[in-house]
Amino acid sequence: MYITQKVNCAGLTKYLYNLFYFLLIMSHKEKKDQKGITADREKDFGEWYAQILQKAELIDYSPVSGCYILRPASYEMWEKVQAYFDMVLKEDGVRNAYFPLFIPESLLSKEASHVKGFTPEVAWVETGGKSKLSERLAVRPTSETIMYDAYAKWIRSYKDLPLRLNQWCNVVRWEFKHPMPFLRSREFLWQEGHTVFATKAEAVSEAKKILGFYERLFREMYAVPVLAGQKSEAEKFPGAEFTFSVEAFASNGKAIQAATSHYLGQHFSKAFDITFVDENQKKQYAWQNSWGVSTRSIGAMILVHADEKGLVLPPKVASRPVVIVPIIFDDTKSAILKEAKSIQEKLKKKGITAYIDDREGYTPGWKFNEWELKGVPLRIEIGPKDLAKKQVMVARRDSGEKQALMLAGVEKEVELLLQQIQKDMYAKAEKLLNSSIVKVENIKEAQKAFEDKKMAFAAWCTNPSCEEEIKAKMGVKSLNSPLEQPVLKKGQLCFACKNVAQRWFYVGRSY
Amino acid sequence: MYITQKVNCAGLTKYLYNLFYFLLIMSHKEKKDQKGITADREKDFGEWYAQILQKAELIDYSPVSGCYILRPASYEMWEKVQAYFDMVLKEDGVRNAYFPLFIPESLLSKEASHVKGFTPEVAWVETGGKSKLSERLAVRPTSETIMYDAYAKWIRSYKDLPLRLNQWCNVVRWEFKHPMPFLRSREFLWQEGHTVFATKAEAVSEAKKILGFYERLFREMYAVPVLAGQKSEAEKFPGAEFTFSVEAFASNGKAIQAATSHYLGQHFSKAFDITFVDENQKKQYAWQNSWGVSTRSIGAMILVHADEKGLVLPPKVASRPVVIVPIIFDDTKSAILKEAKSIQEKLKKKGITAYIDDREGYTPGWKFNEWELKGVPLRIEIGPKDLAKKQVMVARRDSGEKQALMLAGVEKEVELLLQQIQKDMYAKAEKLLNSSIVKVENIKEAQKAFEDKKMAFAAWCTNPSCEEEIKAKMGVKSLNSPLEQPVLKKGQLCFACKNVAQRWFYVGRSY
Repeated sequence: MYITQKVNCAGLTKYLYNLFYFLLIMSHKEKKDQKGITADREKDFGEWYAQILQKAELIDYSPVSGCYILRPASYEMWEKVQAYFDMVLKEDGVRNAYFPLFIPESLLSKEASHVKGFTPEVAWVETGGKSKLSERLAVRPTSETIMYDAYAKWIRSYKDLPLRLNQWCNVVRWEFKHPMPFLRSREFLWQEGHTVFATKAEAVSEAKKILGFYERLFREMYAVPVLAGQKSEAEKFPGAEFTFSVEAFASNGKAIQAATSHYLGQHFSKAFDITFVDENQKKQYAWQNSWGVSTRSIGAMILVHADEKGLVLPPKVASRPVVIVPIIFDDTKSAILKEAKSIQEKLKKKGITAYIDDREGYTPGWKFNEWELKGVPLRIEIGPKDLAKKQVMVARRDSGEKQALMLAGVEKEVELLLQQIQKDMYAKAEKLLNSSIVKVENIKEAQKAFEDKKMAFAAWCTNPSCEEEIKAKMGVKSLNSPLEQPVLKKGQLCFACKNVAQRWFYVGRSY
Repeated sequence: MYITQKVNCAGLTKYLYNLFYFLLIMSHKEKKDQKGITADREKDFGEWYAQILQKAELIDYSPVSGCYILRPASYEMWEKVQAYFDMVLKEDGVRNAYFPLFIPESLLSKEASHVKGFTPEVAWVETGGKSKLSERLAVRPTSETIMYDAYAKWIRSYKDLPLRLNQWCNVVRWEFKHPMPFLRSREFLWQEGHTVFATKAEAVSEAKKILGFYERLFREMYAVPVLAGQKSEAEKFPGAEFTFSVEAFASNGKAIQAATSHYLGQHFSKAFDITFVDENQKKQYAWQNSWGVSTRSIGAMILVHADEKGLVLPPKVASRPVVIVPIIFDDTKSAILKEAKSIQEKLKKKGITAYIDDREGYTPGWKFNEWELKGVPLRIEIGPKDLAKKQVMVARRDSGEKQALMLAGVEKEVELLLQQIQKDMYAKAEKLLNSSIVKVENIKEAQKAFEDKKMAFAAWCTNPSCEEEIKAKMGVKSLNSPLEQPVLKKGQLCFACKNVAQRWFYVGRSY
């Protein structure tokens, strides 16, 4: 439209100016192939995921296989999640502590199913300096044993209960399966809550409450809808009585276990002798829970929201929810930058971090591509034409929509837009999740669902042997079972083995 | 005074009430010996320190020698320090990231003096699951090597500089000296900043700026005055060109190195090939710094402020700067608790966390002792007599001073009192520090200073051989050398070896 306008003497400068402006914007398109995501998400999901992580500068590889560098772009998201969830826990009365990284082998071995579950993937320290250690030390894969050893000392009376501690830390699981950043890494960051109660009822009720906290965390921060429910016997935590989980679902047809809340019953209190004297002076074993969410959650969020152009970040976790790209020409440079800074200041007052990309030597188009690849939720463009009209152009990353916003009151509009983006991203993901659940009656229908990159919702016998067969035959497993169950028909049979069905379960491929 | 008052018919109830109240308060004294600090700080400083840590519930021992549990009371202080310092760094443009815990031996060995300095105290992982690893992995003692390996990949052009990253994490140094919680532990928590610049001037200037940040951190958060200066050659960081430190000083006559800022020059950039193309298209080696402060700082704070009754916390780091102890009788219980909660709410609006100790089965006196032991800066007592007078009693932990505050506007008064406590604690500590510095001319004077639990300020030759001799003879070492130096007299000789003096140094015993 710029090119076809009538050229006259007075308009020549304007014409050239507009032509230049047009070319600048067009460079957006040109540069795409040089830096953007080249992998086809439909054809090679793994390569697409790997490219996003590296090109959006979330992750880099380290010399140790399965251990990744969390670059600022991803670590800052984790900080936001931490800040949010830490407040949720503190308001609920949980206190933070820090327990040692190293767990003596004898301690790790105290609870039978726990040691069986974790020993195959423990990294062992056997030497300190030049000295062989007398007992090898596990680099914590989880902290039940080291924490409960102390709890046994601290808890004496019912007055000491409930005890509800949490720690934010790193854990190591020496996985031998193919590692994937965020989703399956040998070291990851997490919070682990470890709580002790005088009664079973309190413990079970907290396990459910925490499940709700996780559901809310994924909705409010990551804009990710999850399926909350109970894991099968085979999939529960080693040492738990039962495990609740939230499961996210990616567009490639794979579920991601995104957080877990375990009701431990008295398994550990008996192994570690965590007892208390109750109000009737009687000695009792305590009831316990443990629960955690890790940096895996970032992987789930990426898989759910990212698209063919790269990352798409929900405003709540984006370390920079807004980027301002000034369109700079020599004559208007200072005016444009001044306005950009003024917008940044106004947003800061609203608690919104905006980054001004005033780097020289890069075209606006190149910058647009970069910030799209990096998933910044909202881009503000401001050029001389915008300034003349007292407006800015804003572009949403999630929908691609562009609109002009008046400079007056821009901060309020941006705030509303970010809220809208967060909501819309959740709604879109929820729609995908709902359309990915196929209620099935039999193996054939289930298989069809998996082929269509969906999951099955099935009445299941819950037998471990049946689960093993499902896994072997179809490469899928039970995800979880919703706490609120649809009614089972009288005499309803298991979708897979045709024994009597016990519960409705989500079943599918998973990370 | 209660007991001697005249008894008459109407006064009998009041008399009995007051008697009971008096006994309640007196129990403060009685219980002291049962739970309080029993070690004599003058005679057995080590036992006094150990008792404070355990009885104030800061620390517990773990099954691994030298690895300690940071209980909520200490971890929450670290959280406050983190929140403060993280903001300081972010405002200065530093971004957070997270690098792997494990460093392959070959990588750790890339910089000669670095590997020499750290190898003797590395914990090595040699087995993952059931597999022997092909190369053993160091549990990070510090992250220069793993970070700079990545930096070499990321930095290409002067446009990529400066690069300023920080991480909050755990580190392990397998010390063989007698471990002490906070001061010398095998695992500790810290922040480590790692920065890269295009010019030497920028790097040196940042190293100094960070030294200033640490000085401020100790002053503003811990109320601890420190000596800022440069370490000797023998005491600098392995791999650094020079090291700045801040040193705190405890009343038992020992200094504590409390944070360090290292100028690395090009030692690591040459070992790791961190180069950039400058504005003239010339390849250059980069200039680097690293700097850190750890949970050791909590130990320094304890040593500086604690007294014979236990911990004394500066309001800024106390997780609960205020405790409210309601004096409860059956008939006034609900009114008192209501008022306590109202005070708590008013303080919350000021951003001040107050804890209401409404536990039953403990006398007020017992509670007073407990909170004094735990170092809570300000205690608010509220009983029926106070309520009747529309006031509360407040007691300062640092000075022991008590005063009545009117309920109306109590939150403002408490806020001012907390600010005053923070200031007064710093002033008191500064006075002690200043009186602990003795300018000496010779060994004899220095020895006298050390015997008096002070440090020496001396003109020193700075020769490593002289430092070794000082260490061997007197069990002291150089602490640091102030950046602003008093003038050296012409021909001034070293206080120890009588060679020519080079710089003024603080010299003393240290942790």
